[in-house]
Amino acid sequence: MKFRTVAIVARRRRQDIVQTVLSIENTLKKHNVKVIFEDDTEAFLNQTSTRKTLARSKLAGACDLVVVVGGDGSLLGVARDLAEAQLPLLGVNRGGLGFLAGVSPDNLESELEDILYGSFASEDHFLLHAQVVRDGEVIAESTALNDVVVHPGSMAHMMEFRLSVNSKFVYDQRSEGVIVASPTGSTAYSLSAGGPIMHPSLDAIVIVPMFPHTLTSRPLVVRGDAHIEVEVLAAPKTAPRVNWDSQVNTRLRRGDVVKISKYAQPLTLLYPTGYDYFESCRSKLDWASRLSRRPE
Amino acid sequence: MKFRTVAIVARRRRQDIVQTVLSIENTLKKHNVKVIFEDDTEAFLNQTSTRKTLARSKLAGACDLVVVVGGDGSLLGVARDLAEAQLPLLGVNRGGLGFLAGVSPDNLESELEDILYGSFASEDHFLLHAQVVRDGEVIAESTALNDVVVHPGSMAHMMEFRLSVNSKFVYDQRSEGVIVASPTGSTAYSLSAGGPIMHPSLDAIVIVPMFPHTLTSRPLVVRGDAHIEVEVLAAPKTAPRVNWDSQVNTRLRRGDVVKISKYAQPLTLLYPTGYDYFESCRSKLDWASRLSRRPE
Amino acid sequence: MKFRTVAIVARRRRQDIVQTVLSIENTLKKHNVKVIFEDDTEAFLNQTSTRKTLARSKLAGACDLVVVVGGDGSLLGVARDLAEAQLPLLGVNRGGLGFLAGVSPDNLESELEDILYGSFASEDHFLLHAQVVRDGEVIAESTALNDVVVHPGSMAHMMEFRLSVNSKFVYDQRSEGVIVASPTGSTAYSLSAGGPIMHPSLDAIVIVPMFPHTLTSRPLVVRGDAHIEVEVLAAPKTAPRVNWDSQVNTRLRRGDVVKISKYAQPLTLLYPTGYDYFESCRSKLDWASRLSRRPE
Amino acid sequence: MKFRTVAIVARRRRQDIVQTVLSIENTLKKHNVKVIFEDDTEAFLNQTSTRKTLARSKLAGACDLVVVVGGDGSLLGVARDLAEAQLPLLGVNRGGLGFLAGVSPDNLESELEDILYGSFASEDHFLLHAQVVRDGEVIAESTALNDVVVHPGSMAHMMEFRLSVNSKFVYDQRSEGVIVASPTGSTAYSLSAGGPIMHPSLDAIVIVPMFPHTLTSRPLVVRGDAHIEVEVLAAPKTAPRVNWDSQVNTRLRRGDVVKISKYAQPLTLLYPTGYDYFESCRSKLDWASRLSRRPE
Repeated sequence: MKFRTVAIVARRRRQDIVQTVLSIENTLKKHNVKVIFEDDTEAFLNQTSTRKTLARSKLAGACDLVVVVGGDGSLLGVARDLAEAQLPLLGVNRGGLGFLAGVSPDNLESELEDILYGSFASEDHFLLHAQVVRDGEVIAESTALNDVVVHPGSMAHMMEFRLSVNSKFVYDQRSEGVIVASPTGSTAYSLSAGGPIMHPSLDAIVIVPMFPHTLTSRPLVVRGDAHIEVEVLAAPKTAPRVNWDSQVNTRLRRGDVVKISKYAQPLTLLYPTGYDYFESCRSKLDWASRLSRRPE
Repeated sequence: MKFRTVAIVARRRRQDIVQTVLSIENTLKKHNVKVIFEDDTEAFLNQTSTRKTLARSKLAGACDLVVVVGGDGSLLGVARDLAEAQLPLLGVNRGGLGFLAGVSPDNLESELEDILYGSFASEDHFLLHAQVVRDGEVIAESTALNDVVVHPGSMAHMMEFRLSVNSKFVYDQRSEGVIVASPTGSTAYSLSAGGPIMHPSLDAIVIVPMFPHTLTSRPLVVRGDAHIEVEVLAAPKTAPRVNWDSQVNTRLRRGDVVKISKYAQPLTLLYPTGYDYFESCRSKLDWASRLSRRPE
Repeated sequence: MKFRTVAIVARRRRQDIVQTVLSIENTLKKHNVKVIFEDDTEAFLNQTSTRKTLARSKLAGACDLVVVVGGDGSLLGVARDLAEAQLPLLGVNRGGLGFLAGVSPDNLESELEDILYGSFASEDHFLLHAQVVRDGEVIAESTALNDVVVHPGSMAHMMEFRLSVNSKFVYDQRSEGVIVASPTGSTAYSLSAGGPIMHPSLDAIVIVPMFPHTLTSRPLVVRGDAHIEVEVLAAPKTAPRVNWDSQVNTRLRRGDVVKISKYAQPLTLLYPTGYDYFESCRSKLDWASRLSRRPE
Repeated sequence: MKFRTVAIVARRRRQDIVQTVLSIENTLKKHNVKVIFEDDTEAFLNQTSTRKTLARSKLAGACDLVVVVGGDGSLLGVARDLAEAQLPLLGVNRGGLGFLAGVSPDNLESELEDILYGSFASEDHFLLHAQVVRDGEVIAESTALNDVVVHPGSMAHMMEFRLSVNSKFVYDQRSEGVIVASPTGSTAYSLSAGGPIMHPSLDAIVIVPMFPHTLTSRPLVVRGDAHIEVEVLAAPKTAPRVNWDSQVNTRLRRGDVVKISKYAQPLTLLYPTGYDYFESCRSKLDWASRLSRRPE
């Protein structure tokens, strides 16, 4: 048995989620794996139980695998909260596009068993870390698996910011903000904004302007070890913000600097053996995998 | 003196090019640097001379710096021809956008002197190498500094190809071909086709579909050590081709596979001290460097 | 004299604006044209005066030309407020890109004189009109010269809406909203979001999805007489909004329908004789008008 | 009976095409409709017959409906050849995307019967007409249903051209050419190159630069009655061409002018009752018609 203690985290009280959580619990118990429930997750199972529960922040150290049931959003949240812990995560897709989830509910039991017995693929994903510096002090910071976005707060308003990479001035821009995305995030928000797809194994960060006033501004890919700074120059009518994975956000003022770089610990995601990133792209991005018709 | 023997290569017989070549020669001689002319370059100087000349292929070993006068096109050609030689190149811009050129004619003498005395910035650029394999045999191969492009030969015609990365199937695509570009090439043809800008220090290759039939096909950035294969599936009415830097090309048949990967030796380009890649982007891509107006 | 009574509107108290306003007043008086000041404009001139002033809403009927000093934003506001009045507007550019302004401060006096004496080009621009319908009642409505935008209120959040054109279902979309733009607006926000440039004489409306989740969603151009409906399907975490020219906005609820169509009265903008739309594009969009270099 | 004499045109000898042609013939005969075969089509039916045949050029006047079996390519060809004839066309889709085809083989008999009895939707599509003028003389001309494309002949080469609309200079451009498309063509090649979708009822033409060197060049939509001129400025290494619907082409020289405008007669396409353009977009462009999941 590769994993002896497994934690289960789910975000929502939806009936299909509950069923999946119970099914995972059963499979784990069948193989004598110790199960810990995140306390919030256990709370909505609505059953008198003697289950072991822990706050999310206590899972590190207490288990050697975390199973996350939900969509990519749930997994992003757990990834941020457990960034330091270096615990492998296994996503079970119950909603959304599920780019990050390794296991689908259809083959849940058999795929989970394979993984428990050590037969799996694993992929390291780096996280971004962003600090907001005001008057020389860090007033907010968090990690993000997908992206850090600086934006004017309200849509259809322009803001101005200065972009620097490794202390080199890149440009001053008037736009609706900027997305700084990891390879993992390159198939999420960044893609909608015109960014390229970056293979998860690539050590790179992409900087994508949002509705830039200057049509020549284009997505810029820099090395993974780059230090990126976005300084708020002006945003008169709105309250600009930085957000992490579109889940956590902080209000910005003129002069604030958002410093973004790679986070020290990578996140390890598990997948069933045979997992193929490009297959995931083909099915999730609707790439026609094989051409059905001959050209005329 | 950092460089004792310097070769001069220019591609064209234009009068302003000749003036620049003579001016470089004078500067080099003033500092007792030995000068070798590429024989084709010397041929159009139209002057009886006792200059030392060598064929381009003989320059490796005979000099320790090559000065290339002309546009990016000239530099691409020299880079390909001297790929194995590991000689540093210095571009003197006399035409075109000049993304690769380090020295402009305006400050030619002083910038060249600084470089000769060892005061310069240098940037390594990796080249791509592409082989065409037919029935198991390599029928053509070359290096490219910017890009390798597989296309249907004639415009406004579709071709079909299969893309693989590291022997993994990515997709079959019907389009007007595909651009595989290095970071250096990311500001050239690839950019027109919607590819991202990649910092020269990034170890990555971008794959950009050209007018894809499937709107979901997007630029894909992979690691610099990736092995990329483009197999011609069908191109009924046209003679598809692969070209290297839009300068050298080979006709393809159905079933041919174009294998693309990073070339072993990098190319070293020299720039005056203080060279700044982003400054180059700002001026050459018309990025407004600083905002002149406040937003309303 | 073509225009006997001219109103002056300016939005801001900036010193250069004041100078331009006074200069226009002088030119008008020199030619015995009656001058009316919008009351807010007169208020910041900071001079004891016996100037005739009127509220903006009273200008219709009281004058036969309105001169607007400021950027495109100022002109958008006046155009909306005077939409019904069918008064011609002349923009004097004092800020911003000035796509709509006909006269630049450099040749103010002579260009203004030509226009006063009837020598000018005029261009009709249609406005959009949008109503918000909730439970069968119109709860808000306004006109817009550039665009009507439905968005999730806060950036980096998705909303869902249903698009119909002439009562035909087009699609349900999950995105950051949608821009509905007139030809006039096609060089503004819509352009940043990937919309085409539409010639001002074209009777058409463009519908541009913002960061669509479905990569195949593309700008859609429909006839100028089309009736466009955007129904809010879902926007759980945010308060979606509709805005008019990014200047006026209303909060939306699930189920609200935004109905957009061409406004009955066009807006007439005046330009100096010789005005050329494409010249305006070339200078304002940084199109290289003529090629300076030969291709290699 | 709405149509008394119907011509059948098919382009290829493929077995499924033959079956469809015979099935159409049967349905027509069953309802005592006179059938004429285009001679080339009849030739590959491979059966001794007493069928009436005519050259394609003779079909005008001899029938009152033409049924075209094949993909969009076949229909484009017939549309061009019969542009003057003002005969309605009915496309039966046997290949390709089939944006233009009204009837699919699945419900062939019943849909065809409805149409024969006068129950159908019809949609007028305008054609483009392009002339090549050299030294004041027209050296080539043709119509196009989708698009007229001026390109450098070989891919990955730049050409230079000057664009004018209604005798007004728009820009000089260095690019891989330009697509001038009708609304019908806006979902074809133009779409791959970044052009907008234009509703078929729109009286407009879109001009789309191909891989423009200037990133600020964007698709430009002009009125349907516009006169567009593309003058070849330079194309040193290649033989530039103009093509019509990617099916007919002519070689261009420096100085040639391609004059493009709307063709006088529209093409009438028939569809089964209930035909819906947006439904066609949804299914053919893979727009998710309705959202299956709630946003998180």
